[in-house]
Amino acid sequence: MQKSIKNIAFAGSGNVACHLAKGLQMQGYRISNVWSRDFSNAMALAKGFNSRACQEISGLREGTDLIIIAVADKAIEEVARNIGEFDGIVVHTAGSVSIDVLKGNIENSGVFYPLQTFSKVIPVDLMEVPFFLESSSIEVLQVLEEVASKLSTRVYNADSHQRILLHVAAVFTGNFSNLMYVIGNEILENANLPSDLLHPLILEIARKAATGDPLQMQTGPARRKDTVTIEKHISALASMPEYADLYRLLANLISNKYK
Amino acid sequence: MQKSIKNIAFAGSGNVACHLAKGLQMQGYRISNVWSRDFSNAMALAKGFNSRACQEISGLREGTDLIIIAVADKAIEEVARNIGEFDGIVVHTAGSVSIDVLKGNIENSGVFYPLQTFSKVIPVDLMEVPFFLESSSIEVLQVLEEVASKLSTRVYNADSHQRILLHVAAVFTGNFSNLMYVIGNEILENANLPSDLLHPLILEIARKAATGDPLQMQTGPARRKDTVTIEKHISALASMPEYADLYRLLANLISNKYK
Repeated sequence: MQKSIKNIAFAGSGNVACHLAKGLQMQGYRISNVWSRDFSNAMALAKGFNSRACQEISGLREGTDLIIIAVADKAIEEVARNIGEFDGIVVHTAGSVSIDVLKGNIENSGVFYPLQTFSKVIPVDLMEVPFFLESSSIEVLQVLEEVASKLSTRVYNADSHQRILLHVAAVFTGNFSNLMYVIGNEILENANLPSDLLHPLILEIARKAATGDPLQMQTGPARRKDTVTIEKHISALASMPEYADLYRLLANLISNKYK
Repeated sequence: MQKSIKNIAFAGSGNVACHLAKGLQMQGYRISNVWSRDFSNAMALAKGFNSRACQEISGLREGTDLIIIAVADKAIEEVARNIGEFDGIVVHTAGSVSIDVLKGNIENSGVFYPLQTFSKVIPVDLMEVPFFLESSSIEVLQVLEEVASKLSTRVYNADSHQRILLHVAAVFTGNFSNLMYVIGNEILENANLPSDLLHPLILEIARKAATGDPLQMQTGPARRKDTVTIEKHISALASMPEYADLYRLLANLISNKYK
């Protein structure tokens, strides 16, 4: 195992792999090899980083100090097994997968989990993204901390239990808030109104929550326990009964948080 | 009724009144009078705008072309009734209240609804806030359009049914997404992790939703129909059963939106 990483390989060519590879290259690391289930994706990613596309997962080992597995959660264990004998470090990037899935024939393993949503087209400032590390040993942790702290100012340790709760919290904060935007759009469409009407509201609520305490920032009829308005709203959703039920449930959850 | 408004009075001294009064003054209107249920609040607001604090609601009529009622929804009708005989325009600012509650002894009535959340301490760029107008006549509408278009570049007409659906959409987009942030925080506290970890995610998801289609932007285990991760997450919420149930419900809503 190298105490200081120079060459990094990627299994996976999706959003997480792309953003991490770009960030790591900018910090002076060489992206040595790329493997992807679909070889053409590996070639496309490798081309951008002037690195080698691998046909076989085991090819990732060549001239590499660290292999980052950034594939679908359910594929991580199999990908790790197919790396074969490797004296470098192997990490995965998943919130809800235990470090243990890497421990087959890999001595130095870790988790390198960025708490952020990535899409290919939109740039992300990794410096602001919290990274959560777990490792098979103190020595591996030190190596991973060096890499992570070049990418981000916010590097933490988290065991597998904390990491899964982090991921759950991120699902509520990210995926489920996004669902609320989707439902808002559907309701506007239903009223023949354009969905971009809600854009300023989306940004304002997020800005408030990211600079203060969302519990204190809460507004609206449920916070005020304004049952007249709540019932008007539920009636207005008569043609969307699934959302009427959801409105009642979420309004109750809010009301119960305030005395 | 004046065809062109110069003097504007406010019933109410809360967040909506404060932000509107500030915006209107900046556009050259004079804030003539302020009434609030709590007279000391009326005095505080009036002082900031060099205007007169009224002890009685009927005092708002003096030297005023337009009275804006920005009080709790359930108080609007009574406030309007207590204005008394007035040949200017009276509007309310509520999403879920019909224009009809103003039509007792007021000839020229309207609705002036800003689709945004306001808090006292945080400045809002009104120019970006959509305003929705409804009125008792074309003449009133023209007057209100002139005022609204000085405050904002986004002025629309909406009848009472559209406005209530707008408000419902805003509750999902604003209040309920904020609830998701609150729950995310609680889960982090439960894992002994600091809540500001989620701030970059909050901002990133909001930015994406406000520049694209949140239905397309959706990520996460529910979108991927990754039932293994979903079940892991629900298990991790064992000590918070209300949120475990909510997770399952919202994950199903997401999954069902994608084929």
